[in-house]
Amino acid sequence: MCRWLAYIGAPILMEELIFKPKDNLIQQSLHAKSPRTPTNGDGFGLGWYDKQPNPGLFRSIRPAWNDLNLLDLTSHIESHLFMAHVRATSQATIQETNCHPFRYKNWLFVHNGQIANFGQLHQSLLAKVLPKYFENILGSTDSELMFHLALSFGLEDDVPAAIAEMVRVVEAAGKEIGIAESLWMTLCISDGESLWGFRYGSNGKGPTLYVSPDISELRRLNPDLKDKFGEFAACIVSEPIGNFQDSWKPIPDNAKIVIQNQQIVISDFNP
Amino acid sequence: MCRWLAYIGAPILMEELIFKPKDNLIQQSLHAKSPRTPTNGDGFGLGWYDKQPNPGLFRSIRPAWNDLNLLDLTSHIESHLFMAHVRATSQATIQETNCHPFRYKNWLFVHNGQIANFGQLHQSLLAKVLPKYFENILGSTDSELMFHLALSFGLEDDVPAAIAEMVRVVEAAGKEIGIAESLWMTLCISDGESLWGFRYGSNGKGPTLYVSPDISELRRLNPDLKDKFGEFAACIVSEPIGNFQDSWKPIPDNAKIVIQNQQIVISDFNP
Amino acid sequence: MCRWLAYIGAPILMEELIFKPKDNLIQQSLHAKSPRTPTNGDGFGLGWYDKQPNPGLFRSIRPAWNDLNLLDLTSHIESHLFMAHVRATSQATIQETNCHPFRYKNWLFVHNGQIANFGQLHQSLLAKVLPKYFENILGSTDSELMFHLALSFGLEDDVPAAIAEMVRVVEAAGKEIGIAESLWMTLCISDGESLWGFRYGSNGKGPTLYVSPDISELRRLNPDLKDKFGEFAACIVSEPIGNFQDSWKPIPDNAKIVIQNQQIVISDFNP
Amino acid sequence: MCRWLAYIGAPILMEELIFKPKDNLIQQSLHAKSPRTPTNGDGFGLGWYDKQPNPGLFRSIRPAWNDLNLLDLTSHIESHLFMAHVRATSQATIQETNCHPFRYKNWLFVHNGQIANFGQLHQSLLAKVLPKYFENILGSTDSELMFHLALSFGLEDDVPAAIAEMVRVVEAAGKEIGIAESLWMTLCISDGESLWGFRYGSNGKGPTLYVSPDISELRRLNPDLKDKFGEFAACIVSEPIGNFQDSWKPIPDNAKIVIQNQQIVISDFNP
Repeated sequence: MCRWLAYIGAPILMEELIFKPKDNLIQQSLHAKSPRTPTNGDGFGLGWYDKQPNPGLFRSIRPAWNDLNLLDLTSHIESHLFMAHVRATSQATIQETNCHPFRYKNWLFVHNGQIANFGQLHQSLLAKVLPKYFENILGSTDSELMFHLALSFGLEDDVPAAIAEMVRVVEAAGKEIGIAESLWMTLCISDGESLWGFRYGSNGKGPTLYVSPDISELRRLNPDLKDKFGEFAACIVSEPIGNFQDSWKPIPDNAKIVIQNQQIVISDFNP
Repeated sequence: MCRWLAYIGAPILMEELIFKPKDNLIQQSLHAKSPRTPTNGDGFGLGWYDKQPNPGLFRSIRPAWNDLNLLDLTSHIESHLFMAHVRATSQATIQETNCHPFRYKNWLFVHNGQIANFGQLHQSLLAKVLPKYFENILGSTDSELMFHLALSFGLEDDVPAAIAEMVRVVEAAGKEIGIAESLWMTLCISDGESLWGFRYGSNGKGPTLYVSPDISELRRLNPDLKDKFGEFAACIVSEPIGNFQDSWKPIPDNAKIVIQNQQIVISDFNP
Repeated sequence: MCRWLAYIGAPILMEELIFKPKDNLIQQSLHAKSPRTPTNGDGFGLGWYDKQPNPGLFRSIRPAWNDLNLLDLTSHIESHLFMAHVRATSQATIQETNCHPFRYKNWLFVHNGQIANFGQLHQSLLAKVLPKYFENILGSTDSELMFHLALSFGLEDDVPAAIAEMVRVVEAAGKEIGIAESLWMTLCISDGESLWGFRYGSNGKGPTLYVSPDISELRRLNPDLKDKFGEFAACIVSEPIGNFQDSWKPIPDNAKIVIQNQQIVISDFNP
Repeated sequence: MCRWLAYIGAPILMEELIFKPKDNLIQQSLHAKSPRTPTNGDGFGLGWYDKQPNPGLFRSIRPAWNDLNLLDLTSHIESHLFMAHVRATSQATIQETNCHPFRYKNWLFVHNGQIANFGQLHQSLLAKVLPKYFENILGSTDSELMFHLALSFGLEDDVPAAIAEMVRVVEAAGKEIGIAESLWMTLCISDGESLWGFRYGSNGKGPTLYVSPDISELRRLNPDLKDKFGEFAACIVSEPIGNFQDSWKPIPDNAKIVIQNQQIVISDFNP
């Protein structure tokens, strides 16, 4: 099980969310509470937007908790929109190209979950990626392939429609080899302006997903940061961070969240 | 351009060929003589056979010349059949899964050269790999794909026939997108008992390939090692190593070399 | 808190102890049971003796559980005497030169524990290392320094006397800056023939240390391995491994264990 | 031999100097022209100042030319004052803590050159570092030790005086063991506001050091960048970069360069 967070709001140093809060992503990666996933030590990644046209990426196969570069970068780079991901896997090899976020031009993508029996579906799903996106696949994860399938199905034009089609295609491929329930995911996607989050499971039970409380509550809970958040700020996470874990709002099963123009909309996601 | 060597004979410490000779593979990797390839600092790998059923593999993305583990391993592991490879690339990512040798069960495979316009052929060639071999592909190189194509075309039964078919398939795929000459390679392959080497270029000019002089000459040239070589020993290299570079015999263009039952046979290879 | 094991006996593949037993060192490193040390993901190392004059060393900063090279090496290298160590630290940097075992000529050394307030004692303790050993210090850990102090105090001639002197010197240095209890350790040391283990705490409570049951019990508990163990085999561990954790014998506090000429002697260690 | 560059001026993306110019630092690291140093593949580092109180650091043991993170970071991080360094060594281990720049609070330090017979002088020179700086030493290079000696001799108050004292102390230590000429260096140092460069050799022949031409010439030579340079910009390099190598001004032997308040002053340095 992987963990991730995404932030959109006024520019802040990335450490404010990645290292400083109680129970932050790095602590979570080291002291997993769930017995199923003892530790997220299989690499990590950061993707951030700034004034450059495409986002920056920093990915490493070291455990996040012992990477000095990560500490320095997050305490020096400010961003108004970023994602961080820590990985735990027993599947695809530990290599930088298997670390999230994945990037295509101005797009970033992180994932928690898995395609069941991916080994059997890998080759046929790869064949469905459009050639123009194919050479952007550098690793061997189900996550990166899900991203490139969604790109092939029109992600750049309509995010929810492309993700829905990706889900249908993966589930159909699963059914062809006799797997009734094949997908289990939370996703976060950005084009540099908006943020899309998805929580989905073929069996109706996707991994957890939370959104931060509204800006007034955020300011109340984080008095040190309140001047930094600006007019609007929101955070999506796979597991709550910070002192006020109860203040995070769970996203329901089979739902999506879209953060756009300082508006947060949560709605059903039924591919 | 990559460099590699392969040895078959009485068991020797791998350092005898990898570190000790003048102009050895590590020195070559650091001080490339050709202006086209300044340095082979993009990872390396070792594969060796011992009494276990399948070969061992040690691959690293560090430059071979500064890897302390490599120095220790080659000065402690003895093998009667091993391959070493140093990589220089401007193409596929630097990651362990892109380092040679590649392995499938008891088979090892190293490659120097390239498929022209691989980016355009990658997806369609991947689709030709048999599903049973597909999940053994962990990286993104043309080399690993060539190995798995050859496996799919019967490498385990008939090495030269499978390699010839792989060449034909790659060249046909190239022609379909208008590339007249698409393959340029030396290969070395082993099943743990025999050694196959290939030198081939679609234009008739493959990269260089050499075989060591016969055992009596080897003993004369390497007096320190003469008792270690046993009754038979042979080495195939992409570029000569040691003090007596003129003693190495070049393999002709479009030819193969088979070392089996202490016999060396060089013959044409015209797929 | 680090974890380690050491083996002496008939040559076995290192994986037999490192990967195969239930609750082996790698599993321990990933699923630490103690809340104080959540995971040993800060590098690992192997040191092994074979017929070469000095032991081989393989050290890496990757978590042991995701290092493919480690898996391959331990399933291919046989040894009659080896040590393995997994590291968890909040102190010295994660780098290969801080990974155990440490080596000097034919000697190997692993450590679990710490020198209290090491930062304040580091420089003055370094000054006590004999110049002939000084340049063998490549990292920045208290462990490596303890080894080189012991070397300077005659480890090569009398292991227990040199370790006792090292303890006295460290504790005296601690007292000079007002620290009453400054040392907490288990150690394992070998010259390639014998194995010395120490359990010590300035406060009388060192970290845990166990020795395997005698050879007849070992054979009974590990029927698969019984023919491999030969006439004599023994294992020292920081924490029990395998199915029969109760069969391991705890070494008492402030004690040493010496395994020499197929004899195991446990005695007091009171520096 | 290492290579480095330092920049001070209006904020620019670091890639403008590190990756974009012809014969840039990365190309230099791969295609060394001098036969003595075939390649700078032994790690690299970046240090940059921004609005945070202390500089950021990114160091890696990978060859600079194959580090994807480096490419991303330099194309996203802007700085008005930064240093980059590529390393080639046959001495101290390849590890991040041996990569330049070295940092202490708001100070950065890079070095090219060496202390002769450092192995014999290492321990006695370490003893001369003030305790308050000692625990900031994380690696094993002569470079990092030179920095901490200079800190101990008052670098934070008077850079040239502290460097001169460091030189005298190193040369005196050398003479004690019979080495007449023991130091060979170029240095670059910053406190975040000023830049100091030194070129020195005990024998009067230090490694090369160059300063960029004045701002009007810089604008003429780099028309693409001319608007980015602002009112003042200067660069110090171990070897010229860019298309107009003749425009760089060599710093004489045994000299220093100070860039402060948009003024460049070159003067003698005779410790």
